[in-house]
Amino acid sequence: MMYLLHYAPDNASLIVRLVLDGAGIPYRTALVDRATRQQDGPAYRRLNPTGLIPTLETPLGPISETGAILLWLSDRHQLGPAAMDHDRPIFLKWLFFLSNTAHADLRQIFYPHQYCPTEAHPAHQEILAARMRGHFALLDSAARQHPGLFAAAKPLGVYALALTRWSALYPPDAPAWFDLAAYPALLALAKAQEARVETPVIARAEGLGPHPFTRPEQPNPPEGSVL
Amino acid sequence: MMYLLHYAPDNASLIVRLVLDGAGIPYRTALVDRATRQQDGPAYRRLNPTGLIPTLETPLGPISETGAILLWLSDRHQLGPAAMDHDRPIFLKWLFFLSNTAHADLRQIFYPHQYCPTEAHPAHQEILAARMRGHFALLDSAARQHPGLFAAAKPLGVYALALTRWSALYPPDAPAWFDLAAYPALLALAKAQEARVETPVIARAEGLGPHPFTRPEQPNPPEGSVL
Repeated sequence: MMYLLHYAPDNASLIVRLVLDGAGIPYRTALVDRATRQQDGPAYRRLNPTGLIPTLETPLGPISETGAILLWLSDRHQLGPAAMDHDRPIFLKWLFFLSNTAHADLRQIFYPHQYCPTEAHPAHQEILAARMRGHFALLDSAARQHPGLFAAAKPLGVYALALTRWSALYPPDAPAWFDLAAYPALLALAKAQEARVETPVIARAEGLGPHPFTRPEQPNPPEGSVL
Repeated sequence: MMYLLHYAPDNASLIVRLVLDGAGIPYRTALVDRATRQQDGPAYRRLNPTGLIPTLETPLGPISETGAILLWLSDRHQLGPAAMDHDRPIFLKWLFFLSNTAHADLRQIFYPHQYCPTEAHPAHQEILAARMRGHFALLDSAARQHPGLFAAAKPLGVYALALTRWSALYPPDAPAWFDLAAYPALLALAKAQEARVETPVIARAEGLGPHPFTRPEQPNPPEGSVL
């Protein structure tokens, strides 16, 4: 059975897609139409009761949570350190940090109304932006120390890069707070990712523009809706 | 080399401790004194640059992030589904959900000043409490569907239980918003965990009282500081 990736353009599914294509793993895609809130419908909720995108359908059933999908693919297709390898503790530590701290905080910047009362949103955004800059400094340092783990097309590298892209773009109406140039190892990673053959193919499929990581622009997807 | 768990009483290290003792894995503990902010000192930051507790020192070096430690221990000591097992997708999905959604949101209830301006804290707490009740409903349903994974002493079971304990207790000055009785599968899990021999030993070591999960009380640790 070929994998089936339930995706929406420029959503967290982008991370899984970059890893799948980067490793040459065949898969099909199924658009989750956010414009009609398909992620809240019974069909999608049966796959993932939280309604979050992505879900990857595998021969063992559906798996959700970006970090979980990356880890499962990594173990199944040898994309990172195996369970008993020397680098496994570092790999797992940064994968969870990306998921439970960096991604979780960034999510608050995108969806402040899910976390904080409206009148406090500007202050909330400032607090979260300062947290995110601290997280990116740690990630930049980790990418410098562990270039093999934070590499283009690899789980940690792609996850970190996607967070830099979204930090530069979202929410579109908020003041800019992120500059990739402040993080040299992540900037180098962005250039390496854009030099790979699969990047423009995915960027076209999701409407991400010619430089999705070094010069992100608002997406213009050929199908589906970002929000 | 025996594992060395850097811990503080009733901190996330409790989750790792319950899993280690539940599996009969030998380890030593090293108190991180939060009263003197030892977690922000250079020695601890060398082990974990985020400063968060716990860190587990292993023969392969230190590993941090509760979810990462649980997964690493699970793979090394066969405490959950192995990388290619049938249940691995479900195991990983809920482990990441516990880490990046349930635990991340609960952290905001404990430390609102790290996320939201002071004047918005009461509204912020209400929003987060409502989110947490939704997460616990999903976890209760998952525990009912997958009792082997959400079992006492096992990574998912212990992680979910610790979150119920802290939801009942913290922050001490906030209105109560959590009732374990609303989640029958988690309540049954709490009773099963308290029936295990290692639970009172750990509860005494960290000052958690006679019923740390079914009737949590404010901790009174013999050494160290919760906050």
